Amino acid sequence: LNRIKASGLKLRFCTNETQATREKFVKKLQGMGFDISVAEVTAPAPAACRILKERSLRPHLLVHNDLVPEFAEIDKANPNCVVIGDAAENFTYANLNEAFRVLIGMEKPVLISLGRGRYYKETDGLKLDVGAYMKALEYACDVQAEVVGKPAKAFFESALAEMGVPPQEAIMIGDDIVNDVGGAQRCGMRALQVRTGKYR
Amino acid sequence: LNRIKASGLKLRFCTNETQATREKFVKKLQGMGFDISVAEVTAPAPAACRILKERSLRPHLLVHNDLVPEFAEIDKANPNCVVIGDAAENFTYANLNEAFRVLIGMEKPVLISLGRGRYYKETDGLKLDVGAYMKALEYACDVQAEVVGKPAKAFFESALAEMGVPPQEAIMIGDDIVNDVGGAQRCGMRALQVRTGKYR
Repeated sequence: LNRIKASGLKLRFCTNETQATREKFVKKLQGMGFDISVAEVTAPAPAACRILKERSLRPHLLVHNDLVPEFAEIDKANPNCVVIGDAAENFTYANLNEAFRVLIGMEKPVLISLGRGRYYKETDGLKLDVGAYMKALEYACDVQAEVVGKPAKAFFESALAEMGVPPQEAIMIGDDIVNDVGGAQRCGMRALQVRTGKYR
Repeated sequence: LNRIKASGLKLRFCTNETQATREKFVKKLQGMGFDISVAEVTAPAPAACRILKERSLRPHLLVHNDLVPEFAEIDKANPNCVVIGDAAENFTYANLNEAFRVLIGMEKPVLISLGRGRYYKETDGLKLDVGAYMKALEYACDVQAEVVGKPAKAFFESALAEMGVPPQEAIMIGDDIVNDVGGAQRCGMRALQVRTGKYR
């Protein structure tokens, strides 16, 4: 990482983290000794904000409390789309029905999902991830969600746009063959799989 | 209804109701003046119980509190399947994760769903129906639910078995072209659509 930075190459960190703001995520990595700043992180929430602004979408948010600050600058009055993330404890019966009602009430429902994970593991056991709740809303409203985050093409394009670099001049380095390598390749980037992290 | 009964023809009432026991459902209809008894009602829960017994399945229940008595005689210890109904307020984050964990922990997950409705209307607004939560669990566990209730073939077969009547000697009468008429026809029965009830 230090050698990449010293060489003058442009750099972005691409994560699917949606349970916390970039600030929190960066602090964690800084604590581990990494030279990283918030401005260098591409995460689903800011990528979604870019889409919301571009298309004049005003979201109804069904996300984790800790992620809400990422949407601070977004107009949320009179919503014309639903943004769903891994809301964890916020996935209540009432909140799911509310998001559903907002969505089904639209002439053409727009559902943006911060990832499509099926489940993940926490210290107290497995938990349903955002993808499961996304499927519930998709089925109920007969819509297809737009997924933001790896391996979605738009997510990598967002990172490239932030750097001002065309895909053919960029390389993605990651430990996940589908989310990191596959996603980057499908958007015209080269990609390198490292055998660290969750690689088995 | 009285003429059918007077003629000596065998009769079953087929409902997709899963928010209450048959007892409650029958009382409501009796209050409206209908000559109907619990033994004449085919509903998803008892149909599911038949399947559970036949295949020695011990369910983990994610259903409405008022439906639980229908499963009184079913062994629920050490579950080897999940039965999901319209659990309403019981669709909590904790309960969904628990049902998911039971399901994903099985070598070959078995998910039985009491219907596949997308949503329904209550006095306080639209609510997600069991089908949405079924889809969430299907996606998370990469399984296909077995749906009990109209228009599933097995549901009509269950009603026929209870009467001891072959499909070609039975006729289904209902107001729903898909759930009532279509479902019955696909299992070899004749069917008649009435232009009452929810028919428009």
